[in-house]
Amino acid sequence: MSILPDPIQKLILALERLPGIGPKTASRLAFFLLRAPDELSVNLSEALKNLKSSTGFCSICFNITLVNQDICDVCANPERDAATICVVEDSLDVLAMERTGGYHGRYHVLNGVLSPIEGIGPGDLRIRELIERVKEGSIKEIILATNPSMEGDATALYLRQQLAPFGVCITRLARGLPVGGDLEYADQNTLLRALSGRQEM
Amino acid sequence: MSILPDPIQKLILALERLPGIGPKTASRLAFFLLRAPDELSVNLSEALKNLKSSTGFCSICFNITLVNQDICDVCANPERDAATICVVEDSLDVLAMERTGGYHGRYHVLNGVLSPIEGIGPGDLRIRELIERVKEGSIKEIILATNPSMEGDATALYLRQQLAPFGVCITRLARGLPVGGDLEYADQNTLLRALSGRQEM
Repeated sequence: MSILPDPIQKLILALERLPGIGPKTASRLAFFLLRAPDELSVNLSEALKNLKSSTGFCSICFNITLVNQDICDVCANPERDAATICVVEDSLDVLAMERTGGYHGRYHVLNGVLSPIEGIGPGDLRIRELIERVKEGSIKEIILATNPSMEGDATALYLRQQLAPFGVCITRLARGLPVGGDLEYADQNTLLRALSGRQEM
Repeated sequence: MSILPDPIQKLILALERLPGIGPKTASRLAFFLLRAPDELSVNLSEALKNLKSSTGFCSICFNITLVNQDICDVCANPERDAATICVVEDSLDVLAMERTGGYHGRYHVLNGVLSPIEGIGPGDLRIRELIERVKEGSIKEIILATNPSMEGDATALYLRQQLAPFGVCITRLARGLPVGGDLEYADQNTLLRALSGRQEM
């Protein structure tokens, strides 16, 4: 590897630290950038430089905001239903929910899931802040939208337990076959969930 | 998408322009960087900023070098066989050849392949410069190591034609089954090449 000039080597090493990018992809990207117009690498460099310094978190739901913005656009929007909170793992999930166009309530971003293996306990997530929001009394429904994974389920169970005393309606996103999916290719757990959750039509 | 703050949106758009990175991967990378230690995005930003300004090309073989370095380490190394030139498409291929540890000659980086569809003709590649090197007379063998693709083959054929008058030995990398491969999964062209190129053992 010593035949590569240092600036490229450095870029490859920096790219390799991104998730899903191995040494080969990193080299390919680095050489692509080398041949691409200057503007491409400059834009990316600028965007990265400003990323951390120009973003912050909404003081209500902990979704990402601009650094000088105290609350996010969703929390600031009076047309959004303030009585419904959708609890998600991270801001990417907010984005996914917003893309559906079918949700009109507010959010609460946990910033992860409970994971004893990775040493992430309730104190590492924004659970206390969620409970504070519920305590204020105007919340009617909490939709637990953590991922349908083992950790996501465990986190949802924990949250249900913690939120039970407040008498709000607690729901979880439906499980079943994905739209456009194929019965034949569905894993058995998904199919089992689809069967047990079947609805009259 | 409007709910994402501008700095993240910008980063996602910049990442999307990289090859093999779609909108979903770009968002995932952007949010990963947002949660990762500052050092990660800063390092990447720095590496990108310096990439173009600090690299240049070897004046002999057109491999990548540092900007203040006239010839690359391979060309500068007196222990490398100056009578053999391995012709490759780009610097990544030099890297791949060097990794084998089995090549001790020099290189010539074409900077692409002939591709009428993309409008890349002989004038866009460093073919004239290769011919100049051969004309000088000390070259004994030219290994045409363009990719075993349609464009790579066409480029190799064109180069053989152009280099024929100079009486140097012109070779092409062997085709056949990849090491560790499986006959069952080999495509028919590869198997056909392996068959026609079979060697006595």
